[in-house]
Amino acid sequence: MTLKDIVVFSGSAHESFTHKICTHLGLRMSPVRISRFSNDCLQAQLLVNVRQRDVYIVQPLVAPTQDHLMELLLMIQAARSASAAQITAVIPHYAYARSDKKDASRISVGGRLVADLLSTAGVDRVLTMQLHAPQVQGFFSVPVDQLTAMGTLAQYLRAYNDNAVVVSPDFGNAKSASTFARLLGVPVAAGSKRRLGDNEVVIDTIVGDVLGKHCIVMDDEIATGGSILELIRQLKAHGALDTVVACTHGLFAGDAVERLRGEPFIREVVTTDTVPAPSGWPELTVLSVAPLFAEAIDRIHGGKSISKMFEGIDPVYAPPKGQDELF
Amino acid sequence: MTLKDIVVFSGSAHESFTHKICTHLGLRMSPVRISRFSNDCLQAQLLVNVRQRDVYIVQPLVAPTQDHLMELLLMIQAARSASAAQITAVIPHYAYARSDKKDASRISVGGRLVADLLSTAGVDRVLTMQLHAPQVQGFFSVPVDQLTAMGTLAQYLRAYNDNAVVVSPDFGNAKSASTFARLLGVPVAAGSKRRLGDNEVVIDTIVGDVLGKHCIVMDDEIATGGSILELIRQLKAHGALDTVVACTHGLFAGDAVERLRGEPFIREVVTTDTVPAPSGWPELTVLSVAPLFAEAIDRIHGGKSISKMFEGIDPVYAPPKGQDELF
Amino acid sequence: MTLKDIVVFSGSAHESFTHKICTHLGLRMSPVRISRFSNDCLQAQLLVNVRQRDVYIVQPLVAPTQDHLMELLLMIQAARSASAAQITAVIPHYAYARSDKKDASRISVGGRLVADLLSTAGVDRVLTMQLHAPQVQGFFSVPVDQLTAMGTLAQYLRAYNDNAVVVSPDFGNAKSASTFARLLGVPVAAGSKRRLGDNEVVIDTIVGDVLGKHCIVMDDEIATGGSILELIRQLKAHGALDTVVACTHGLFAGDAVERLRGEPFIREVVTTDTVPAPSGWPELTVLSVAPLFAEAIDRIHGGKSISKMFEGIDPVYAPPKGQDELF
Amino acid sequence: MTLKDIVVFSGSAHESFTHKICTHLGLRMSPVRISRFSNDCLQAQLLVNVRQRDVYIVQPLVAPTQDHLMELLLMIQAARSASAAQITAVIPHYAYARSDKKDASRISVGGRLVADLLSTAGVDRVLTMQLHAPQVQGFFSVPVDQLTAMGTLAQYLRAYNDNAVVVSPDFGNAKSASTFARLLGVPVAAGSKRRLGDNEVVIDTIVGDVLGKHCIVMDDEIATGGSILELIRQLKAHGALDTVVACTHGLFAGDAVERLRGEPFIREVVTTDTVPAPSGWPELTVLSVAPLFAEAIDRIHGGKSISKMFEGIDPVYAPPKGQDELF
Amino acid sequence: MTLKDIVVFSGSAHESFTHKICTHLGLRMSPVRISRFSNDCLQAQLLVNVRQRDVYIVQPLVAPTQDHLMELLLMIQAARSASAAQITAVIPHYAYARSDKKDASRISVGGRLVADLLSTAGVDRVLTMQLHAPQVQGFFSVPVDQLTAMGTLAQYLRAYNDNAVVVSPDFGNAKSASTFARLLGVPVAAGSKRRLGDNEVVIDTIVGDVLGKHCIVMDDEIATGGSILELIRQLKAHGALDTVVACTHGLFAGDAVERLRGEPFIREVVTTDTVPAPSGWPELTVLSVAPLFAEAIDRIHGGKSISKMFEGIDPVYAPPKGQDELF
Amino acid sequence: MTLKDIVVFSGSAHESFTHKICTHLGLRMSPVRISRFSNDCLQAQLLVNVRQRDVYIVQPLVAPTQDHLMELLLMIQAARSASAAQITAVIPHYAYARSDKKDASRISVGGRLVADLLSTAGVDRVLTMQLHAPQVQGFFSVPVDQLTAMGTLAQYLRAYNDNAVVVSPDFGNAKSASTFARLLGVPVAAGSKRRLGDNEVVIDTIVGDVLGKHCIVMDDEIATGGSILELIRQLKAHGALDTVVACTHGLFAGDAVERLRGEPFIREVVTTDTVPAPSGWPELTVLSVAPLFAEAIDRIHGGKSISKMFEGIDPVYAPPKGQDELF
Repeated sequence: MTLKDIVVFSGSAHESFTHKICTHLGLRMSPVRISRFSNDCLQAQLLVNVRQRDVYIVQPLVAPTQDHLMELLLMIQAARSASAAQITAVIPHYAYARSDKKDASRISVGGRLVADLLSTAGVDRVLTMQLHAPQVQGFFSVPVDQLTAMGTLAQYLRAYNDNAVVVSPDFGNAKSASTFARLLGVPVAAGSKRRLGDNEVVIDTIVGDVLGKHCIVMDDEIATGGSILELIRQLKAHGALDTVVACTHGLFAGDAVERLRGEPFIREVVTTDTVPAPSGWPELTVLSVAPLFAEAIDRIHGGKSISKMFEGIDPVYAPPKGQDELF
Repeated sequence: MTLKDIVVFSGSAHESFTHKICTHLGLRMSPVRISRFSNDCLQAQLLVNVRQRDVYIVQPLVAPTQDHLMELLLMIQAARSASAAQITAVIPHYAYARSDKKDASRISVGGRLVADLLSTAGVDRVLTMQLHAPQVQGFFSVPVDQLTAMGTLAQYLRAYNDNAVVVSPDFGNAKSASTFARLLGVPVAAGSKRRLGDNEVVIDTIVGDVLGKHCIVMDDEIATGGSILELIRQLKAHGALDTVVACTHGLFAGDAVERLRGEPFIREVVTTDTVPAPSGWPELTVLSVAPLFAEAIDRIHGGKSISKMFEGIDPVYAPPKGQDELF
Repeated sequence: MTLKDIVVFSGSAHESFTHKICTHLGLRMSPVRISRFSNDCLQAQLLVNVRQRDVYIVQPLVAPTQDHLMELLLMIQAARSASAAQITAVIPHYAYARSDKKDASRISVGGRLVADLLSTAGVDRVLTMQLHAPQVQGFFSVPVDQLTAMGTLAQYLRAYNDNAVVVSPDFGNAKSASTFARLLGVPVAAGSKRRLGDNEVVIDTIVGDVLGKHCIVMDDEIATGGSILELIRQLKAHGALDTVVACTHGLFAGDAVERLRGEPFIREVVTTDTVPAPSGWPELTVLSVAPLFAEAIDRIHGGKSISKMFEGIDPVYAPPKGQDELF
Repeated sequence: MTLKDIVVFSGSAHESFTHKICTHLGLRMSPVRISRFSNDCLQAQLLVNVRQRDVYIVQPLVAPTQDHLMELLLMIQAARSASAAQITAVIPHYAYARSDKKDASRISVGGRLVADLLSTAGVDRVLTMQLHAPQVQGFFSVPVDQLTAMGTLAQYLRAYNDNAVVVSPDFGNAKSASTFARLLGVPVAAGSKRRLGDNEVVIDTIVGDVLGKHCIVMDDEIATGGSILELIRQLKAHGALDTVVACTHGLFAGDAVERLRGEPFIREVVTTDTVPAPSGWPELTVLSVAPLFAEAIDRIHGGKSISKMFEGIDPVYAPPKGQDELF
Repeated sequence: MTLKDIVVFSGSAHESFTHKICTHLGLRMSPVRISRFSNDCLQAQLLVNVRQRDVYIVQPLVAPTQDHLMELLLMIQAARSASAAQITAVIPHYAYARSDKKDASRISVGGRLVADLLSTAGVDRVLTMQLHAPQVQGFFSVPVDQLTAMGTLAQYLRAYNDNAVVVSPDFGNAKSASTFARLLGVPVAAGSKRRLGDNEVVIDTIVGDVLGKHCIVMDDEIATGGSILELIRQLKAHGALDTVVACTHGLFAGDAVERLRGEPFIREVVTTDTVPAPSGWPELTVLSVAPLFAEAIDRIHGGKSISKMFEGIDPVYAPPKGQDELF
Repeated sequence: MTLKDIVVFSGSAHESFTHKICTHLGLRMSPVRISRFSNDCLQAQLLVNVRQRDVYIVQPLVAPTQDHLMELLLMIQAARSASAAQITAVIPHYAYARSDKKDASRISVGGRLVADLLSTAGVDRVLTMQLHAPQVQGFFSVPVDQLTAMGTLAQYLRAYNDNAVVVSPDFGNAKSASTFARLLGVPVAAGSKRRLGDNEVVIDTIVGDVLGKHCIVMDDEIATGGSILELIRQLKAHGALDTVVACTHGLFAGDAVERLRGEPFIREVVTTDTVPAPSGWPELTVLSVAPLFAEAIDRIHGGKSISKMFEGIDPVYAPPKGQDELF
């Protein structure tokens, strides 16, 4: 199927990111008018023709999350009813992935609900990066193309890999931490979390050797920074030298900016631009993953493999071994 | 089908209204825990058993509208996955009803989208009051029970019906205005809107006789109050004596409170409690429709006719004539 | 997506209209065999290959309405199961749009039901003209492309716009009447309907100035002609000179033909060919909208904007202002 | 689940049949108002409360078939949106069952389409009698309760079983013919159809012995009577004495009444009241199956087995052998 | 719509057949990895890119039927979630077609269930051959392209048509038997089945003339061979000379191979390769229908008519008469 | 809703378990007939009336997994089409939960597929125990009631809690291991897995203190026993004394029985009866969870809370704190 032209729209959550994607694609971002009525209801109007077009709507789910979600749903509905050929929701950060299970009675599972809402609005595909849990992909009934920033982060952090160790704040994330360590050619360690009461969790030890080493702390997402700071306390206690902190989704909510900026044990914090950068933190290193998203859009549009983009990086995303010639 | 106990939850939009409903039903409102995470995602946990219960979740769609909508969707999902027998979304004010048509190219139709989102979350029925356009009921794929405040408002306004005329701000609403006039036993008039440019609309005359009369202005919803003030300008010009302003949904957004309070031509503003009352307006008359909602819930639960509640009030809601003995 | 050849079929409701569309498209109309069995069941067989084709099935919902609807549904199903790439139901007159609300208890809403039946049969898109209420578009879960005959009618009626006024029979239609008046460069007036009993409605006055003027009465649809004749009674009483009557859907059911032909105050009746012309009325002016439908089909097929067709005519159908260069 | 009261409505196809069902159930038939608008669209309004009720809507699909189908769909939609607990479409004759396969390219399969339309309108269950092909039951996504008139017909025809043979017009129906013969305790024979051209089929022989016997011709449905008359020609040729003709669905379309009345070889024609009896045929024997439908409704309502009704009649409908005590 | 490249995968049921199809298409079969875990769960991984591709997955439902079905469902899901443009399940033998009706109370209808499961997994179309009953096509909600081996078998069997008669084992299959006879230019006969008890069925006579003739027994499927052997007993009794046995789906389950090989009255058994050939039967004639499947895939891919393939063979599959020029 | 009688059926996977459930409920297990045809297709017939009944079908997904799954789907379909009021699939071991993510390109996610297949067949609810990952609950669109054997196992293992430590084989399971440890009043430790190559994983250390302790190894499922044996190697190396091995789902596939029986470091292996016990292992301790399932069915039927069953055991399953009086 040869799809007609790509049309890229941006919700209001992260317009500069959409601009970067468009630049890489060699396209102009298409205009949309989002209106807010006096009763606080939202409305979206797409200002260019989308008939039979291959439409991409870019919107990470960042605060105000509900407004951004509703914008996205309204834009999808508008595109659907205007006869778009194919609608891809580009959600660099799918925040509701954290609500992925019923860990208490009669609790909502937002990750599944939002996946269903997107389908109802009329989406055909979701393009996202690094879901909090890999199972969340199974919540969607439409195809999900999941990207990883691991290659981008690894390339930058190679400058630090002398006498270094990759440290994961917990074991849930340990699998991707070891993949990351292998990319850097360094060993891996992890914090071991222990549950004190019902809601209190502490990191009470470090598994793996960090003594006299430079630590590269790697997490998928940093929200308030609490886990990172607690991990650092343990790293110090276990004789680590210092740390670089890296994550894909750098939310830095609450007083995270202050707390992390003020921590002298941290040499540098590295993140990506899946969400807007926090204000007041000039020395934060933000690597752009817009080129990855642009390439993914180009490959989706052209019917090319996305796994191919991550060959040699992470087997979860990459093509099966020894079949390369078939791609 | 004899349903098990009624369980009533409240979203955070209008808890006092839910309390009133529960009082009328002789029930305790059931607790729910709404959490907001550091990434601004919401979560709902129902704190009582809902298995095989007849569940009602009360939430008008008022500002912050998107958050209140998401709360409602999450609560519905939680109830559905906790095996509720029947889930009724009680939405006293369905704000998205105003987005009811594609009046421009490639525009979203929020009224339909939100109806679909509620179905996706798992709702079985919607109980609401006075939708902005009657066609909006057709957007839902689940049954909608629509109530009217007309009887409640008429009973109160009978005190004003000496030498009075009911005035509708526009002809779109004229049918319900005449029904209302008949309830009060007074004549009816209406403002005639004219479109100046693409977005500017003025009321340029009054159809019907208002000279030397007390006007009872009746509208379904007052948002910014602009239409009402313009209508009053015309009423003055046509020699009306003064006015009482009545509406079902009193949003009073923006500077509506100031503007309406400051208008000496208005003797009284009467509304209902489908939405929280605006602050700073002690003399606003708020009639409670909670008894109507409570009776409707009781009738839904008991399999009794809701039309029956509006006999002699509005044929749109009431049972067909001459068939009373069958109800 | 480059769609393969267009294939156009006609139900039995209005074959001559389909022929005109095909002529404008430079295509042959494709044959279909509709059979009626001895038990009055219908069957449709498409007599040309539709595999991967872009299929259009033309059928206005005119009497016998149910048979024509069923023909349409069966043809859609046949095309779907024969692997058509895309099926557009071309319904120049969607008669069920008049059943658009629950204006009495426990009443069917045919406009929504038929929209759902079309989806069930397998339609991908609906192409129609001037729905009775704009909200009806929201009843469909598939994209709806709605055309307007306003430009076609205005072009013809410009011959009459000397000392003329556009008159709408009621205020529900007033918005499109003013758009129409602006196209002709004349003022606008409207009849004001009053409800006498539950089902009786009279036009009891005219809003706007018609004294000494030629009236251009404009309505979306004329069924029995009752409203028009009542309006004319009022126009005479208000000193109008005479009238031209125009409508998009000229059903002229019951004794409408006799009544309208016999009214000397009417200089001419102008309608379109969305439905077959009534017999026995040679002087009726029927403007063809087949070229509009043909152009719309060509644009749908080619992925071009349909709004663009109505630029400068009606903002509801036309592209957003100042964005023209983007189309 | 203890369901609330049974409510029975009738479409306009066969009201007397619905009356008989109600009489057997000891109920009053509930009123419905079917309106036909000037544009030939239909509308249904249920005139009694159906909230949480167990609703049955009776309508065989007889000519005018499309109108009767649409009435049924509209009544189902009205009941669904008025919160009926359970809606059963009682379709004594499901005429569209004859369109059960694609026996030519790109042909509609009405039997499946109508099954889907009923689901879309909101039906929960279908209660019918003797579908033309047993596979048609598999077209429905809702439960179908299928009754048989075989017991009713056999009881009446026992008067004829002296020196008799049951004859099926073709082998497709042979299985139920042998079941029927076993009920009467007589042998079975069948006509053997041969296809001459593409559409012409003749019965060219009789399999089984009919010489010197009274024949009981048994078919599921008689439409134009053509097959029956051709079979009789062969029965005469094979030396049969005379015949009684029996069928479940006696449509007698076209000139069937004249042709069958005028055939002296036929001693009696026996049918049931699943469809209205043809006019002008006083000597036609019509056995009522209304008691069977009433009992089925009572069993559906009460959660009792319907198979149990046909024990000893036909194993297709009856409960599994030797498990009786479990019912 | 110009679809991108064809990609053909094979489940493990009949890889050699898929290879033949690929050879005819001039393609390499694409690799898939089917894994079986220690808990006996299956997993499928497609080893080439399928994004925007036109995917065909070949798998007849032969024993172990459930494993082969699950493989097929998993491969479909994998292709769907990997953004295939179109997924066609190529099921040369759809074994569950035999479960096509509720011929006893509370019995499953596997033919419908499996059709629904395929849709749920995400299939867009089914390509199959000779369904056991033509109604089964109506069980699917996606398009079904059904092929016939009649032409292939007829071409081979023309060698036998001197003094021959086509014999159908029963009358259910008689229509396709006469089509087949017409292709060979010979007469037709059929066995007449009689039901002894509830489950025992015997062939008790032959309708049509077989005396002194060579019989060509034709059936859609041979499972245990029981019916064929019983038919042969009758053919001998009616003075037939000998027989050739032909069928589309040659399952030869249980001891069918021994029983049929051992029967001297049979000159040859001819079947196709829709299912793997039984082992230990070298003289079985297996005609390949892979070229038909390859051509069908090529036509589906290219948007060409499949009916066209069967012109002059069987009107059920072929294009309508006299419309050839339109294809 | 007062549901009619409970009816419990058993698939063929684990009939003795269903018997135990029935015994606890004081019911007879209802008979079902599962047939396997000569083409290896399955068919299910329910041998008792299920109309308006509350139906439970018990079937763990154990080998042959695909056959057991298909049996379950067919039984659900049969119950649905026989008008069951509510159908609960009781799947004590949901084996496909292990296929819960796309951990390689273009791979199937069986856990989601099977959840969807169950919905398609017509299930209303799933009752299961201890899903492999908690996110799998989010794969279902119907309510899932998940039970835990933790209380049952803890009660038995209290005999061992002197100088003991609970050990989890990996950190993924660590949260439930700590809950379990708290129930026993002992500390917790865990194996730390390290990934060697793409598919090889080793446990390379133990986090937490096991020196001189009795270990209670706790896992959700034991398949081949490989992880357990590797853990034991490490426990020995870290100076543990001995171990008791406990798990919810004791599959013991391949040579697990031999390997675990032959390991002298293991004092006892304790599991439950969610799956049939392996043969040839008399000393295996199998605790029955049938009473839990019976109680859950009773609570589902009676509309009582299931969380309440796990109060004080695991907060994930138990009611929210301090709200007990509301249950």
